[in-house]
Amino acid sequence: MRLGVCYYPEHWPEDRWETDAQRMSALGLKVVRIGEFAWSKIQPSPDKYHWDWLDKAIETLHKHGLGVILGTPTATPPKWLVDRMPDMLALDEHGRPRKFGSRRHYCFSHKGYRTECRRIVTMLAKRYGNNPAVVMWQTDNEFGCHNTVESYSPAAVQGFRDWLKHRYKTIDAVNVAWGTVFWSQHYQSFEEVDAPAATVTEANPSHRLDYQRFLSDQVASFNREQIDIIRAHSPDREITHNFMGKFTSFDHHKVGRDLDLATWDSYPLGFLELSDVSDLRKKEWMRQGHPDFQAFHHDLYRGCSKKWGVMEQQPGPVNWAPYNPAPLPGMVRLWSLEAIAHGADLLSWFRWRQAPFAQEQMHAGLLRSDNMPAPAYEEAAQVANDLKAIKEQKTHKADVALLFDYEGQWTHDIQPQGKGLDLYKQAFEAYSALRQLALSIDIVSPKADLLSYKFIVVPGLPILSPELIDALKTTSAQVVLLPRTGSKSYTFHIPEGLPPYGLQSELGLKVVRVESLRPNIRETGDLLGTHLNVVNWREHLELDPDNQPDRVANYANGKPLWVCRKHLHYIAGWLDETSLVTVLADLAKRAGIARRPLGSNIRFRQLGELEFAFNYGLQATTIDVHVPDKVQFVLGNHQLKPAGVSAWIKSTAL
Amino acid sequence: MRLGVCYYPEHWPEDRWETDAQRMSALGLKVVRIGEFAWSKIQPSPDKYHWDWLDKAIETLHKHGLGVILGTPTATPPKWLVDRMPDMLALDEHGRPRKFGSRRHYCFSHKGYRTECRRIVTMLAKRYGNNPAVVMWQTDNEFGCHNTVESYSPAAVQGFRDWLKHRYKTIDAVNVAWGTVFWSQHYQSFEEVDAPAATVTEANPSHRLDYQRFLSDQVASFNREQIDIIRAHSPDREITHNFMGKFTSFDHHKVGRDLDLATWDSYPLGFLELSDVSDLRKKEWMRQGHPDFQAFHHDLYRGCSKKWGVMEQQPGPVNWAPYNPAPLPGMVRLWSLEAIAHGADLLSWFRWRQAPFAQEQMHAGLLRSDNMPAPAYEEAAQVANDLKAIKEQKTHKADVALLFDYEGQWTHDIQPQGKGLDLYKQAFEAYSALRQLALSIDIVSPKADLLSYKFIVVPGLPILSPELIDALKTTSAQVVLLPRTGSKSYTFHIPEGLPPYGLQSELGLKVVRVESLRPNIRETGDLLGTHLNVVNWREHLELDPDNQPDRVANYANGKPLWVCRKHLHYIAGWLDETSLVTVLADLAKRAGIARRPLGSNIRFRQLGELEFAFNYGLQATTIDVHVPDKVQFVLGNHQLKPAGVSAWIKSTAL
Amino acid sequence: MRLGVCYYPEHWPEDRWETDAQRMSALGLKVVRIGEFAWSKIQPSPDKYHWDWLDKAIETLHKHGLGVILGTPTATPPKWLVDRMPDMLALDEHGRPRKFGSRRHYCFSHKGYRTECRRIVTMLAKRYGNNPAVVMWQTDNEFGCHNTVESYSPAAVQGFRDWLKHRYKTIDAVNVAWGTVFWSQHYQSFEEVDAPAATVTEANPSHRLDYQRFLSDQVASFNREQIDIIRAHSPDREITHNFMGKFTSFDHHKVGRDLDLATWDSYPLGFLELSDVSDLRKKEWMRQGHPDFQAFHHDLYRGCSKKWGVMEQQPGPVNWAPYNPAPLPGMVRLWSLEAIAHGADLLSWFRWRQAPFAQEQMHAGLLRSDNMPAPAYEEAAQVANDLKAIKEQKTHKADVALLFDYEGQWTHDIQPQGKGLDLYKQAFEAYSALRQLALSIDIVSPKADLLSYKFIVVPGLPILSPELIDALKTTSAQVVLLPRTGSKSYTFHIPEGLPPYGLQSELGLKVVRVESLRPNIRETGDLLGTHLNVVNWREHLELDPDNQPDRVANYANGKPLWVCRKHLHYIAGWLDETSLVTVLADLAKRAGIARRPLGSNIRFRQLGELEFAFNYGLQATTIDVHVPDKVQFVLGNHQLKPAGVSAWIKSTAL
Repeated sequence: MRLGVCYYPEHWPEDRWETDAQRMSALGLKVVRIGEFAWSKIQPSPDKYHWDWLDKAIETLHKHGLGVILGTPTATPPKWLVDRMPDMLALDEHGRPRKFGSRRHYCFSHKGYRTECRRIVTMLAKRYGNNPAVVMWQTDNEFGCHNTVESYSPAAVQGFRDWLKHRYKTIDAVNVAWGTVFWSQHYQSFEEVDAPAATVTEANPSHRLDYQRFLSDQVASFNREQIDIIRAHSPDREITHNFMGKFTSFDHHKVGRDLDLATWDSYPLGFLELSDVSDLRKKEWMRQGHPDFQAFHHDLYRGCSKKWGVMEQQPGPVNWAPYNPAPLPGMVRLWSLEAIAHGADLLSWFRWRQAPFAQEQMHAGLLRSDNMPAPAYEEAAQVANDLKAIKEQKTHKADVALLFDYEGQWTHDIQPQGKGLDLYKQAFEAYSALRQLALSIDIVSPKADLLSYKFIVVPGLPILSPELIDALKTTSAQVVLLPRTGSKSYTFHIPEGLPPYGLQSELGLKVVRVESLRPNIRETGDLLGTHLNVVNWREHLELDPDNQPDRVANYANGKPLWVCRKHLHYIAGWLDETSLVTVLADLAKRAGIARRPLGSNIRFRQLGELEFAFNYGLQATTIDVHVPDKVQFVLGNHQLKPAGVSAWIKSTAL
Repeated sequence: MRLGVCYYPEHWPEDRWETDAQRMSALGLKVVRIGEFAWSKIQPSPDKYHWDWLDKAIETLHKHGLGVILGTPTATPPKWLVDRMPDMLALDEHGRPRKFGSRRHYCFSHKGYRTECRRIVTMLAKRYGNNPAVVMWQTDNEFGCHNTVESYSPAAVQGFRDWLKHRYKTIDAVNVAWGTVFWSQHYQSFEEVDAPAATVTEANPSHRLDYQRFLSDQVASFNREQIDIIRAHSPDREITHNFMGKFTSFDHHKVGRDLDLATWDSYPLGFLELSDVSDLRKKEWMRQGHPDFQAFHHDLYRGCSKKWGVMEQQPGPVNWAPYNPAPLPGMVRLWSLEAIAHGADLLSWFRWRQAPFAQEQMHAGLLRSDNMPAPAYEEAAQVANDLKAIKEQKTHKADVALLFDYEGQWTHDIQPQGKGLDLYKQAFEAYSALRQLALSIDIVSPKADLLSYKFIVVPGLPILSPELIDALKTTSAQVVLLPRTGSKSYTFHIPEGLPPYGLQSELGLKVVRVESLRPNIRETGDLLGTHLNVVNWREHLELDPDNQPDRVANYANGKPLWVCRKHLHYIAGWLDETSLVTVLADLAKRAGIARRPLGSNIRFRQLGELEFAFNYGLQATTIDVHVPDKVQFVLGNHQLKPAGVSAWIKSTAL
Repeated sequence: MRLGVCYYPEHWPEDRWETDAQRMSALGLKVVRIGEFAWSKIQPSPDKYHWDWLDKAIETLHKHGLGVILGTPTATPPKWLVDRMPDMLALDEHGRPRKFGSRRHYCFSHKGYRTECRRIVTMLAKRYGNNPAVVMWQTDNEFGCHNTVESYSPAAVQGFRDWLKHRYKTIDAVNVAWGTVFWSQHYQSFEEVDAPAATVTEANPSHRLDYQRFLSDQVASFNREQIDIIRAHSPDREITHNFMGKFTSFDHHKVGRDLDLATWDSYPLGFLELSDVSDLRKKEWMRQGHPDFQAFHHDLYRGCSKKWGVMEQQPGPVNWAPYNPAPLPGMVRLWSLEAIAHGADLLSWFRWRQAPFAQEQMHAGLLRSDNMPAPAYEEAAQVANDLKAIKEQKTHKADVALLFDYEGQWTHDIQPQGKGLDLYKQAFEAYSALRQLALSIDIVSPKADLLSYKFIVVPGLPILSPELIDALKTTSAQVVLLPRTGSKSYTFHIPEGLPPYGLQSELGLKVVRVESLRPNIRETGDLLGTHLNVVNWREHLELDPDNQPDRVANYANGKPLWVCRKHLHYIAGWLDETSLVTVLADLAKRAGIARRPLGSNIRFRQLGELEFAFNYGLQATTIDVHVPDKVQFVLGNHQLKPAGVSAWIKSTAL
């Protein structure tokens, strides 16, 4: 477990680098990420290279015992490069270029730009690949930020046609897969196919899904090209990419598989403000963030690669949300320790020092722009100290698996059928409910090995692979399928035999009708006397008359809401928060992993032999009823102040 | 009166067609609409035609006693055609093409596309024009859907210049008509005139109105070209077009005059969700739709052509509204019977079977995608049965005429003067108030013969023709003019002598000032002790000092709100729902047609010798106080359950 | 002090001009503005000129003793001119032309259009420059209306590059100033620099600020070109331009310095409707306007030039707001007298007669379109009469200076850091609070002479010049700095040593952290027992440990909210309305100018020896407690009806 920081030596006078490195080292940091936006500093014009500054920066950091995470600068191609090949810019759906002047101004499909990227990455990898200071590489920066996966350029369209040819072989196969018989969408040749953009009304959903798959594959191959170069020239170094929060436009599992560790950039307050939680909750959590957002992504990215970490941890107010408050004192430490509790291999704050110029001048750092410590500085030092108490711990393999899938998210995005509904929302609500039940969770790809889990939650995954269907049938875990699970075929059709595809006969049911409900509608149900509320989405099931599943809960009109056969459960409605906690608690009990529910602002997480507790609330609280007297605390105690963290040896509690 | 269904044989394996036809026939259907999106299935490439499938489909239906309504496929030109003439696409106001990939991707003004349409329609009409199976033709599909009347292409601009030349002869006449002396908008020649698009601030309103007239005329002539071809090659067949709900971008009266029957596509739940009624009412009516929306369009389209019908009746959840719930059990029957009660000549459900692929896969049908009956199937069967009780009835000519006019709508759209105000809103609110008074209404063009009516409601028609002015003056009916009536000249000027144009001296008043009011403003008035509320719009009248009209109601400050001279009434403010009911009840009494008002969810409608009652509410109710004991019911009785329908022989109640 | 009206003789038959002039004169008007949109009437085609009508119109007005304010017609270039040089149109940020068909369809940077403007202005100035009827010129019309300062055309980009070269000399200076080392934004040459438009995410703030400075300078030089021509050919005539309300896209101080008087167009009801005040207040003030909006602009434009006035005063409902009600009877008089009370040199109503055609046909005038007096006509006559009682008065130099700065506004616009926060909002709220304290205020440029003031309010001006810093340090006035004052350097960097730049050591504090707060957040403070509320923005101060300022008020957590050293005060939070009144009242007391606060709808203003009171409320009220019994009233008395105005000789009250 390494602590680190993001640093931009090129922003500061060289004579300050030495002191910076000293202070970093004294703070307890081990690694420093640099270089990921420095292309024009390295190559200010086509035929001029400046390596000396980078050489010296790396050397200076190394001298103070700091390992370097070196970023490839491909997120910020210089102006001269854009002027040489203006068609390297991504085009929006109306064909308008997304221009130079900020960052990420490129189309993943542009072959010329790909060549330039390989060139600059090769130069970097050759020059620093064996430098003992360099311990890790980061490819590019935040793929997808500012909606940059999407491009409708000629290069993208040509790439899409090639992708289709490779996948479908014949245009007739495309016609069948997309159902182009509908609305005379028939294609005679691949060359007739365009991007699904700027159509009069909604484009064909299968076309859209394939286009998103293609775009996602372009990200993966773009990333893969860099990885291949780095591996060739920089043996034994780890390679990472820094993902973001709630980005779903490309398949992070696919990109993550090529990495050594998946990292992500964690900005709890900015993310809260951009989220769709109520204004009341945004008020309550303004300085703490959503109690589950960070953990969700820790658990999600842990499932994306061999290891994971946080590359950019918010240290104070940011500059990009509608409102940018400061964290509650202690929250920077809490967020950092929470990442560690979820098994992070790396925790790095963004950024060392606030830059007084350009776009991010209002983004806080560990140091203020006048070089004095910002509030986060002291909390970072405290984290370094806390680490000694925690010691090295093995990541905890959870009892609960929550499945998440990018392809599934695209499918919901393309045809939400109800405004604002998507897979992420469903998964996040399920995750939050499980966390309120004090459970530790793994968020995994549907391709993951599910063998060891006791409880598997499937939040409306529309497309189920045969392997997954088989795994769900044969597992000994309790499996709960939330609405829309198995509702689409791979080519975005309603499956033959109706949803849930592949599990209809196993469950003895079919989903024969679905409804999306406006926000002021609440349908009610009953679970053995406990009232349940269904919002957003309601399904009508037809039960197999010859082989009915058990009816665990019904709608008020007597129709089935929760049915079960053996270990398989199907929920025919979108439960509100309280009802979801109720239902998942019942299922956790069936799985033998039930715990006493926590309050709405307290969260637990297991790490190796330890269990952690975090207080996201504004009130002090105690965890006496959840944690026996006799446990051995390594951090804190039974009392949790706001922003408080406790950790204890879990075995002592058993 | 024929029942029917919309069917896409090309979506299904041929071996299923036979069973489909059998089941349709058994269900009591008489007609089946096919073919309207099948261009690429008929002509998959420029020189290849597939007629066999269509021959066979028609033959199969015919064999089972079903008449075919054959659609021309011009709403969905194939990709090869678009690639051959990319400038056939409509351009939006910024010149961006509205591309292939869904439907309606064409500009009505493109001469090349017109030629192609005439070609394919001629081929169809020659091939099937005398086929005994074919009983009706449908031109294109839902003109105007997805805002496709509007185009700003070079073809449209050239068409507009020609249209102006034809109408104005000289550019100076245009300059005078548009008042181009204002802001130096003077034109030297027709070639200088562009579409009123992408201007810095609002374009000239007369220019905009003429452009909308031109666009509307293009729709009419596009439709007319197809009609001429079909009439030449398919004698004795009816021709229809399927209009939509609340589409006002072209003159439906003009298009309707060329048809044998006007049909429309009735989606009560989708339309409710898209409407501007309050969230509370959307909640209440979520599964029933607005109690007046369907009836309004039935009565509107009845006034558009010789006959009318519903070509597409919603059978279950749709896929295109923000939220898509299922209808209350019984509502599909209610909607269907309501169309019949309003005099529909055709009632056809959309669609036979839910397609599991492409854009509309989440749109319900009479059959589910697994070929089993959806809930609507049984209700359709019930309607077929109900028809026997109803027998053949003559359409009822109503006592009340509500005037509506597309040109008037454009005028309000172009200069609403108050946000959200338009003619449709005014007309719809008046219609709803009249319906709450248990009246049957005809919605008619201002060009219609008004002779037989007892009560004429004019909802703010801005442009009054001399003929209409004359008819209003000389009628023996009570005539009420709502605000903004006669407020503009034909060329979009304030009329000389001020509004209401042509009726100032008859009424002894002038509108000297108007105000639009923000939504939280309510002005009050008094009608002989009854409190009236004015919202949205208030007018200040100057009464002729020598020849004052009667003052029926005044504003709180003593200014006139409702004045009357003989049979002519002028209302100088936009009344809220309750006040409008009060005022129209008083007027109905003067006209001798007053009835006891209904509750907010019950509606009546007369058809021939029958009267129908419909319950749009969620509560059961009785119509005892409205319908005498002794009437003879042909459907239901005095009790109306939710979604309930009753019908009785009206003469028995007199 | 002159009364006037805006008039369009070209809109009316010539035979009506004579009567119009007679009536104007009889009404008490002295000046008439004409001609500002008449280019195509003067020059209907490239080689045809019509001067006769204009000659005659001017002569007719002159004959009746009316002075002519002659507008240059450059806001409305004719269609033939646009067709000759289509690239004269401004382009929006996506490169889309803003087309002919309304007004202001030109790019300030287009050299060809500049030439045409000089040509037509020269012709006008030569022809009418010495005409005795012409007493004033108006350049163009409402610069910036419809967001027309912004253009991203090739001409603008080239102009920007030239502007940069002139200002920075070397591209390296630009790189340093903008911090282009950030995100590889480095430029090799001026030719590489584009407009900051259509970037993937936010463009560089220094780049944006310089672009706005450039755009503003283009307006100033465009205006200046016309002024130079007019001065050369029309000696001794005043020159004005009519600004608008709440337009901030160019530097009005800079443009104003070239004028003889700054005029503005005052539409109280339209501006209220477009403002961000609550719906409840919009309801209350619907027919009166915001009590401070007009006064704010009177005081602002008084600080922009040698003299000032109102060129267009709203006379009734307008046509361009979302809702357009009529003024309360008396309000047209009140607005007019309020302008006079603030020292207007000219008060001119817009427009003489409502035009029944084209875009503004629903905009009221003094006359209705049927040539009868509209309600404002009588109120205008009354104002002419009131003027006799007021006599000639010297403009009052206020005790309070409120600083405002366009560059500061752009800086906030570019990086608000909190949604909806800007300098204008801060300045306006401070202004309104001061007005509630019955004070008269000067709104001045930071470059103004501040010597005579007793109280200086600095509402978050981000960029402070050395001269201003010096003036604030050395003044004997009380100076209050609101949050964000001195928060940026000239090149949009966080200043060295942190904010407030230049005053840190004087005040003994630094702003070390800022937070923007969501609307439902309220932080509290305490001012000697009085509760204070902070909204929107909170700052964290570090006080100089060796030389602490006084702490006048603290936040609830004990952190400083209001600190003071000598005459300098710093407020570390955005106060809500009540708290701002409290704090400014305390400061006014320290400055020796405190008065008894007024109710929320009553406003006072001093003019020469007079003081005026205005009632913006819907309730009658008395000013007994504010104005001693014995004062001599020249208008009204202690009783103020709604829309009431009183004025008295102030000295009698001392």
